[in-house]
Amino acid sequence: MAEDTVKPERPGGFLDFLPPDYLAREKMLKTIEKVFRSFGFDPIETPRLEFLKTLAGETSDTGKNIFHIKSTHDDEPLAMPFDHTVPFARILAANPYNTRTKAGIRLPWRRMVVGPVFRSDTPQSGRYRQFYQFDADIAGASSMLADAEIVAIMFLTMEALGVKQFKIRLNNRKILNGLAKLANIADREEVSTDDITKEMMRILDKLDKIGLDKVLAELQAEPETALDAAPALSGDAIEKIRAFLNLKGNNEEKLSLCRTVFEGVSIAQEGIDELGQILEYVAGMGIPSEPLEIDFSIARGLDYYTGPVMETVLLDAPEFGSVFSGGRYNNLVSRFTGKELPATGASIGVDRLFAALSHLEAIDRSEETVAEVMVLRIEKDRDADYLRIATDLRSVGINTEISLADDTTFKKQFNFAISRGVKFVIICGGNEFEKGTIQVKNLQTRKQEEIPRDELMKYFK
Amino acid sequence: MAEDTVKPERPGGFLDFLPPDYLAREKMLKTIEKVFRSFGFDPIETPRLEFLKTLAGETSDTGKNIFHIKSTHDDEPLAMPFDHTVPFARILAANPYNTRTKAGIRLPWRRMVVGPVFRSDTPQSGRYRQFYQFDADIAGASSMLADAEIVAIMFLTMEALGVKQFKIRLNNRKILNGLAKLANIADREEVSTDDITKEMMRILDKLDKIGLDKVLAELQAEPETALDAAPALSGDAIEKIRAFLNLKGNNEEKLSLCRTVFEGVSIAQEGIDELGQILEYVAGMGIPSEPLEIDFSIARGLDYYTGPVMETVLLDAPEFGSVFSGGRYNNLVSRFTGKELPATGASIGVDRLFAALSHLEAIDRSEETVAEVMVLRIEKDRDADYLRIATDLRSVGINTEISLADDTTFKKQFNFAISRGVKFVIICGGNEFEKGTIQVKNLQTRKQEEIPRDELMKYFK
Repeated sequence: MAEDTVKPERPGGFLDFLPPDYLAREKMLKTIEKVFRSFGFDPIETPRLEFLKTLAGETSDTGKNIFHIKSTHDDEPLAMPFDHTVPFARILAANPYNTRTKAGIRLPWRRMVVGPVFRSDTPQSGRYRQFYQFDADIAGASSMLADAEIVAIMFLTMEALGVKQFKIRLNNRKILNGLAKLANIADREEVSTDDITKEMMRILDKLDKIGLDKVLAELQAEPETALDAAPALSGDAIEKIRAFLNLKGNNEEKLSLCRTVFEGVSIAQEGIDELGQILEYVAGMGIPSEPLEIDFSIARGLDYYTGPVMETVLLDAPEFGSVFSGGRYNNLVSRFTGKELPATGASIGVDRLFAALSHLEAIDRSEETVAEVMVLRIEKDRDADYLRIATDLRSVGINTEISLADDTTFKKQFNFAISRGVKFVIICGGNEFEKGTIQVKNLQTRKQEEIPRDELMKYFK
Repeated sequence: MAEDTVKPERPGGFLDFLPPDYLAREKMLKTIEKVFRSFGFDPIETPRLEFLKTLAGETSDTGKNIFHIKSTHDDEPLAMPFDHTVPFARILAANPYNTRTKAGIRLPWRRMVVGPVFRSDTPQSGRYRQFYQFDADIAGASSMLADAEIVAIMFLTMEALGVKQFKIRLNNRKILNGLAKLANIADREEVSTDDITKEMMRILDKLDKIGLDKVLAELQAEPETALDAAPALSGDAIEKIRAFLNLKGNNEEKLSLCRTVFEGVSIAQEGIDELGQILEYVAGMGIPSEPLEIDFSIARGLDYYTGPVMETVLLDAPEFGSVFSGGRYNNLVSRFTGKELPATGASIGVDRLFAALSHLEAIDRSEETVAEVMVLRIEKDRDADYLRIATDLRSVGINTEISLADDTTFKKQFNFAISRGVKFVIICGGNEFEKGTIQVKNLQTRKQEEIPRDELMKYFK
């Protein structure tokens, strides 16, 4: 038979969660959920398979980062979602509010979602191919109060998770678009202003990794081909950008200096106003200003952001990058409806955050099992009594397991209870049955108490 | 742009869960989880993708009911799990307990798992292609106490879910194997005893659907080809089976009569002993005997059961079939290790159960949102005050959302709050600010109270 056996392997980039990891992660997820729900974010769930066209768009390439499904049962190919935002958009587009029937989703709507997303990738790279994202988004609100709530949630989540050292960095795509104006970016024969602007943002986004000099050098480099979107900025433009990125001071000072730099550039002024409003609202929610930092180099890679962008970094574990980031994207449902819909939100990379908090020793893995008490079965003919003890404990809310070992010697059972990680062991042998008592051993304090059988429930209450 | 848009469709057989469905289902899942955990079942999670060979076996066919993944990144094909049992077995095989390092999983081990499983199928059939299963299994225990716990959990889960009318039906594969002996099933040239026995069980399993006469006729029918595993029982054997299936009485009477029928058939006697033990243990856990029913026709289709089998049917919604079923399977890890490991467990078809309970109007969908209070924004320059009110409410544990509507007229906001399903609305206009008060409107009772601003938190506590 052995030659026919299958190796019990897991594909690379996928994780199992066994206790105590499962329990520690569950605690983290509940903490996050509580913060999100306190703001009225409603939970939803969407399936693990969608039409590929939903995820990748009708006109897009086939999405090489997407897990495709071989299905002979569908007219359209299926695929696994790579984020929660696209299924959220599908739901909004499919369930518009109907004023007559009062069915559908009324906007504005705060929704949260937690679950796995999937990225097809080489398993060798060590990157996760399945990981949880925990998202909070608000659809249908153009007010900066919505963006401020997202920032507040970032702060309150980190606080609730016990993270002491973190920064929430804020910027606005509108300011970066203003920067493109300031740098005189314009269409070239085969490349649009838009594409060159995006390339500029992509380069700016590398500031943390490669430093200011290299960023400026890349911004100045000439295009290698006619299709290359390299910004190829003039020396004059580079100086303006250097001045912009060097703006120093607290948030109010930065915004005020920025206002001067972008005098006459209305899109940037709008972005500055928005950031000012967010800071005001966030303060109104009682959030301290200290962890909030205006950082004009933050671009957040994704094309779809249209307004404020934000990210959260752990100061004692910067190598994990941003663990909670997002921004405003007003084109959420345009793939489905062709129309704009204001939306803002942010996403936690749950497994990355869990890894980062583990690295910081901020994850409590002490709970090895949900079982709190183990009842040993010592006397052969006393099962009915042991079962009754377990039942009584469960009736007062104590998770109780009864020893199931085939080897019913006391020592074996007792050692098993220790290795299992339960907090209490119930020991009841011939002596105790005679006296009508029970021995309760606390495995943490090593203290053993003999109590009357009929006080058991009171003892554990 | 419209011609490029994608229809916001979901593939057939996949579900979205929006509030209030999400919240109602979440409540059901938490109820189940609480019962499982009270017995010490530890939660785990395994990935949504596994190696196909893990799921389908090395020598098996490619598993036509399995969703296959196109992945160029893996040496082995990947696929989506169709149940939780195989990944559970993989985990057990991959993490054997090491007495020296004390790493790995110590047996016996109770584990629970909840999450989606996937069946590739034609979407037209209306069957779910993704559905949640909620499993409880015990590995490494050969005692019938383990099986009794599974039965107890079935009862307690139904009770906790508020189901009044249900039966838990019990049988034992060993008795059915004895029946094959009793019916003189033996190898034919091209079909083994084992295959004929399985075919007999498959036919018996249809008793509920097609009735006794048709079952007996099928059992008697001659094989159509040399490879046909039709039992082709003799008239004598048919009479024995008829007598067996007609055994009447309460559970003790049935077992006692059964003992006589199977006199000398040791495998069946063993099965009868096991059922007797289960009933005794279950009674020891304080479970009433009334919903438990020995039913010798239950076979539970799957090949891998080796001992007791059980299923739960809702008497007022029998058309939904068994909503919680399982049994003992001692070959759990043999695919991976080539060895036997005793295991027993059961699985809830969550989405089927949810549908059945909805049908029985036993699902409470009244919670439309997690938000309990909505704070209206009536005065234009009072956002700081409204934010403070919301923050104060959250600080005492009340999920509070602040009105985000762009149209800030009172009527629009108030109507929105009603359609949103929050329980309370906070109304604070110029008058209230002047007096230092707040209007709290209970949308359920329609009662409105004016309270001092500084008593808000106390009011909601």
